[in-house]
Amino acid sequence: MTPKTTGPQRQPLDAAETALIDRYWRAANYLSVGQIYLLDNPLLREPLKAEHIKPRLLGHWGTTPGLNFIYAHLNRIIRARDADVIYVCGPGHGGPGMVANTYLEGTYSEIYPEIAEGEKGMQKLFKQFSFPGGVPSHVAPETPGSIHEGGELGYALVHAYGAAFDNPDLVVACVIGDGEAETGPLSGSWQSHKFLNAARDGAVLPILHLNGYKIANPTVLARMGDEDLRSLFTGYGYQPFFVEGHEPQKMHARMAEVLDEAFDTIAGIQADARAGRAGHACPRWPMIVLRSPKGWTGPKEVDGLKVEDFWRSHQVPVSNCRGDDAHRKILEDWMRSYDPEDLFDASGKLKDELRALVPEGTRRMGANPHANGGLLRRELEVPDFRDYAIAVEGPGRKGGQSTKVLGTYLRDVMRLNEKHANFRVFGPDETESNRLGDVFQATSRVWMEDIRPYDVHLSPDGRVMEVLSEHLCQGWLEGYLLTGRHGFFSCYEAFIHIIDSMFNQHAKWLQVSRELPWRKPVSSLTYLLTSHVWRQDHNGLSHQDPGFIDLVANKKADIVRIYLPPDANTLLWVGDHCLKTYDRINVIVAGKQPEPQWLSMDEAIRHCEAGMGKWDWASNDEGGEPDVVMACAGDVPTMETLAAVDLLREHVPDLKIRVVNVVDLLALQPQYRHPHGLDDAAFDALFTKDRPVVFAYHGYPYLIHRLTYKRTNHDNIHVHGFVDEGTTTTPFDMTVMNELDRYHLALAALKWVPGLEARAPEVVAELQGRLDAHHHYVRAYGDDMPEIRDWVWNR
Amino acid sequence: MTPKTTGPQRQPLDAAETALIDRYWRAANYLSVGQIYLLDNPLLREPLKAEHIKPRLLGHWGTTPGLNFIYAHLNRIIRARDADVIYVCGPGHGGPGMVANTYLEGTYSEIYPEIAEGEKGMQKLFKQFSFPGGVPSHVAPETPGSIHEGGELGYALVHAYGAAFDNPDLVVACVIGDGEAETGPLSGSWQSHKFLNAARDGAVLPILHLNGYKIANPTVLARMGDEDLRSLFTGYGYQPFFVEGHEPQKMHARMAEVLDEAFDTIAGIQADARAGRAGHACPRWPMIVLRSPKGWTGPKEVDGLKVEDFWRSHQVPVSNCRGDDAHRKILEDWMRSYDPEDLFDASGKLKDELRALVPEGTRRMGANPHANGGLLRRELEVPDFRDYAIAVEGPGRKGGQSTKVLGTYLRDVMRLNEKHANFRVFGPDETESNRLGDVFQATSRVWMEDIRPYDVHLSPDGRVMEVLSEHLCQGWLEGYLLTGRHGFFSCYEAFIHIIDSMFNQHAKWLQVSRELPWRKPVSSLTYLLTSHVWRQDHNGLSHQDPGFIDLVANKKADIVRIYLPPDANTLLWVGDHCLKTYDRINVIVAGKQPEPQWLSMDEAIRHCEAGMGKWDWASNDEGGEPDVVMACAGDVPTMETLAAVDLLREHVPDLKIRVVNVVDLLALQPQYRHPHGLDDAAFDALFTKDRPVVFAYHGYPYLIHRLTYKRTNHDNIHVHGFVDEGTTTTPFDMTVMNELDRYHLALAALKWVPGLEARAPEVVAELQGRLDAHHHYVRAYGDDMPEIRDWVWNR
Repeated sequence: MTPKTTGPQRQPLDAAETALIDRYWRAANYLSVGQIYLLDNPLLREPLKAEHIKPRLLGHWGTTPGLNFIYAHLNRIIRARDADVIYVCGPGHGGPGMVANTYLEGTYSEIYPEIAEGEKGMQKLFKQFSFPGGVPSHVAPETPGSIHEGGELGYALVHAYGAAFDNPDLVVACVIGDGEAETGPLSGSWQSHKFLNAARDGAVLPILHLNGYKIANPTVLARMGDEDLRSLFTGYGYQPFFVEGHEPQKMHARMAEVLDEAFDTIAGIQADARAGRAGHACPRWPMIVLRSPKGWTGPKEVDGLKVEDFWRSHQVPVSNCRGDDAHRKILEDWMRSYDPEDLFDASGKLKDELRALVPEGTRRMGANPHANGGLLRRELEVPDFRDYAIAVEGPGRKGGQSTKVLGTYLRDVMRLNEKHANFRVFGPDETESNRLGDVFQATSRVWMEDIRPYDVHLSPDGRVMEVLSEHLCQGWLEGYLLTGRHGFFSCYEAFIHIIDSMFNQHAKWLQVSRELPWRKPVSSLTYLLTSHVWRQDHNGLSHQDPGFIDLVANKKADIVRIYLPPDANTLLWVGDHCLKTYDRINVIVAGKQPEPQWLSMDEAIRHCEAGMGKWDWASNDEGGEPDVVMACAGDVPTMETLAAVDLLREHVPDLKIRVVNVVDLLALQPQYRHPHGLDDAAFDALFTKDRPVVFAYHGYPYLIHRLTYKRTNHDNIHVHGFVDEGTTTTPFDMTVMNELDRYHLALAALKWVPGLEARAPEVVAELQGRLDAHHHYVRAYGDDMPEIRDWVWNR
Repeated sequence: MTPKTTGPQRQPLDAAETALIDRYWRAANYLSVGQIYLLDNPLLREPLKAEHIKPRLLGHWGTTPGLNFIYAHLNRIIRARDADVIYVCGPGHGGPGMVANTYLEGTYSEIYPEIAEGEKGMQKLFKQFSFPGGVPSHVAPETPGSIHEGGELGYALVHAYGAAFDNPDLVVACVIGDGEAETGPLSGSWQSHKFLNAARDGAVLPILHLNGYKIANPTVLARMGDEDLRSLFTGYGYQPFFVEGHEPQKMHARMAEVLDEAFDTIAGIQADARAGRAGHACPRWPMIVLRSPKGWTGPKEVDGLKVEDFWRSHQVPVSNCRGDDAHRKILEDWMRSYDPEDLFDASGKLKDELRALVPEGTRRMGANPHANGGLLRRELEVPDFRDYAIAVEGPGRKGGQSTKVLGTYLRDVMRLNEKHANFRVFGPDETESNRLGDVFQATSRVWMEDIRPYDVHLSPDGRVMEVLSEHLCQGWLEGYLLTGRHGFFSCYEAFIHIIDSMFNQHAKWLQVSRELPWRKPVSSLTYLLTSHVWRQDHNGLSHQDPGFIDLVANKKADIVRIYLPPDANTLLWVGDHCLKTYDRINVIVAGKQPEPQWLSMDEAIRHCEAGMGKWDWASNDEGGEPDVVMACAGDVPTMETLAAVDLLREHVPDLKIRVVNVVDLLALQPQYRHPHGLDDAAFDALFTKDRPVVFAYHGYPYLIHRLTYKRTNHDNIHVHGFVDEGTTTTPFDMTVMNELDRYHLALAALKWVPGLEARAPEVVAELQGRLDAHHHYVRAYGDDMPEIRDWVWNR
């Protein structure tokens, strides 16, 4: 591989090129201001009138000129070196800048032909911005060249690294605003380069853009001195370069020089690593600190108050341009200061000599296929999941560790795709803990710092990404998927809430992307949540939280899937299925502890394909209507339900019981709500129209009501689940505390079947007695009752 | 104020004191190992037998000896200087260490008398650890001296800073594990000292404990060289001190020396600041990098594999001590290596000369009242909220900005409590944006970096905490509340999801604390969520998410409250009420934009006290049963509902309509589910038993079903809310996209009242026509229909 970052002999920017770049920058600034303000008169061919101004002014100017400055200089270096570069725009509210630049380079009009080059298209470009039915004021899926939504701040740098992994020729230029730099996730992201291997991965060039202010405050990093900044980023392992000032000519010269140095440094690091000269050392990658005024080139003052180089330029620097002639004059002077006649030809197109500064074809950052990863996505190769099935001689007769079995499958997915370098497994230091350790037969954890002789499964070439940060795992994976690759994220169930908001934003990205025909599908983001609420034997309440499912269930139906496989073979089907899907988020919840196994592979396939179904072998309703439906979703609820059924059949042998297990949770919804929804007739056939349903569910019970409230039999569904009772105790005691255990479930059946409690008071007493014995036993001996374990293993 | 950190002349630790501290440390280590392993034979008076070992071994050894080492040395410095110190234990799984130390110092037995000092108590101490009905393996509310749950990692340092604000005499020693140091929130927390004023706040002494490994991996920071670490923390603005090694004698000497230096440095900074000598400069606070082996003093190898100084010591270093004699021998040798006879007297109590190392009374870190903040909590002084009421001449006749009105009240809360220095307002750079700017009449934003002449409302003495990190705001506030103070957090609604998991953990902390009589109530954590889903005029889908409410509603009923005040006067009542509560989390959702105002202060008080109620002035059911109930919760849904009612009354004048508004969302639940729940009779009287209810709700519609599904009339409740349709558009168009607008609501009423659609087809056509016109208008003109604005303001 020849690093594309090497180029011709470096030389200082000459006066002619400086002038051209400055004009290009002015064009981008002009178009940015136009988007924020103008409804019409885009080229200022006549004096600005009130009716040319949008009735509501919405948008963010402050960060934009700096973003435009960087874009122009990246264009230069791409052309000079034929470099393969994408632009991750952290200060996402700089949407007008990213739109302006992709418009100038032609990609915007190629994707959106109605926003054509020329005056008419420019008027539409201006009008659509922050306008009903138009485009948001921040970088979004609609923005060409973007893999990063600029709404919620914190994830620019992790997305950039995710894009760079396994893309050896790519340079991801990542602009980080000084507001975003205050967030936790961004602060943690600076360590990402310690997981990036120069020999096989691309490069990230962080550009910390210090323009000094947030909405209404200075920023912490901007008020740090250069010495502290240099020390900070040196400490993080980077080689910082500074570009500081406000005079355009000097800044152009310095930025060009620094970018040359940075790209040379990257080229050198990559060349050494790829020639095997680097040994195993964590290279000191370049990063740039760019200090430029907020609202640079905008109005210096408005109404006597400082605007340029201050937070007042954050959004709309001069606000009443429609109603106030003086304000409109400020705007007009400002826009004319860019000299549009010098930038655009008579038709309103960018002048040829400026257009010549733009890279060609897919080298244009707005057209780079890495930023539309579906274009590059190669189908994942998967083995036949049936080959990993565990033999189940009879339901509940044998134990197994579901996630461990899945680990063998993932190991071979890893092997099969090694040659394409497009599959990675992510987790916060938990791959082994989550029993997926067999993947280490195929690969290691990636590790670029020092490796010691006694270290285990660490290598610069590993494809398991482990860092104690859910944010980093999630962000890297998002970046990896959005650039066309595949991945798998395993996490403790309770702590996946750490990335709730990232999940939300990724779901929103997918929701919008799917509506854009030019964005090609990307692989789904698949979570395996394990170490779940029911098995926190020593961790207690802080580790007991199944609520992520509820967050997921709030999303648009077709974006999400939730699976609760009750055993290893169902987990295999689900895992395999999820890895083959695209443009979705899949959530799988499954335990990592030894558990009874229920279904053979063939049974598992039938069951999972249907999403839910009756388990005949556990039921005794023999084709008729049952007296009670015992439903379950989740591995522990399934075990407890079957134990409850066992108790009921022993004690009330004439009770007709139907056992229904649900794997695909959203299939509980009506079909008009979710594409996987079971049709009403099938649902009624399974759950009956009027018999009591005792539903044992993994998470918060409400969700089952929410999913089924339009179903015929909804009023008879009685859900047992997690009700936030937890502590340090045995798994079985956890179910008792939340009334999800076999005794409570059996007692519920007795209660809800009309007349049964009265008919069988001795059974109620017996079950209640067993519960009491448990309470006694668990306090006295500190473990489950032996009979429970016996039942599980020797049924 | 005399800083308590100054002390007598420093001198090196002499041999005798070193020996004593080492013995004390060994005692803590001994008790830690005992907790992990032993059921009985706590003092090893007989050889260890299988039955002395717990049947399940659960716990975390690896981090513990380092935590014990720090504890012993902090005891020394507290005694030497009469310092007021609390210990925030970031490596929370080191629970055995914190329990051991508080037991050694006597606080544990004072709080839990059954865990007495002496052999019998020691046996109970050992047995309860990670045992059903016992204590978790990590630091938890049950642990004396703690304000920090050691489950989810990332928040140790923000909690520490929160505790230090406005506690000028306090030093918060904050131990940060090298695992936790990889998280985003912790990484971002290093900047917290730039918001800490040495003149009025206490000090935080971060101790970065690098023991090298996480669960199954090295840590990123531990494998950094000292030079990079020094550079990193210098860059963050600290003065780093290093304590590195594994030989106890040398380590004791070095730790004592460094702690002396650190406390002297703190004393110097504080003395300068308090004497006015510091000027306005951000002082360079000390921090300590402690490198010590993971599992220090534990088994070096087990079964031929490296354990000490490696990740295999993370949990239980030698696992099969019950079943395997050789393993048990390793354990016994390990425990005897601490020489228990040298540590404990014949009765099993810590020997007197070691007990003499412990500080006295509330200087003991387990007994420091700051770590049980309710002991120190002073009631917040509040003005009469009625004084801030806005005059409402008639419903909907006047506009107002609800949060701006609340800002005037908060300003005076700030003024009233200035003298007690116990109230702060937190927000991610959004106080002004959220229209709470009037608080700046009373105080400023705290800012310790450079302040420039043109800066606005920045001061080292400010009590508004603004940083662009929801994690920092949340964590600081938690620390501030848990140490007995008061606060208020305003945030954009969509981005509060960033701290979902912190909210979860704080709710769990409160849930457990409330069960512990010795933990005194602390003030509630109150959120104002604004810039909400319905008013994201230029931000689009990424800023549109009302799902935080759903997360909150999953929590134990009495821990949480959710309020949706529809206007300014109701918001005043709610804000005032929330600030007076304790041990809860209050969520208030209210818009910041100009909105119609509905209720006079007297009406607002009556309405809010009931939690929900009929609005007579908007209803025409005149004491009888209505044909339809138009219910609403949230400001925008309320406005749209009243507009829908207006349309219905115009077009179907004989339709009997009842308008019900809900402020206290959880009052919708039955009383047996929530203490605020309306009783069934009152609910039925309000919502009827059988009439259709069209319910316009602020968030995801399912929640209303979930809260009301046990109510008589549940099947007739038809909820309109946010269904994840969003984009950059006008507020009114947002409601249309989600069918929450007046036309859809009126059409729903027509649909659900039996026979009405058939009776009034022309009304359906008219309303449908208006919707069509909206779609046309919004695309063409880009703003709401003028009639809509007219209606709002001129009703």
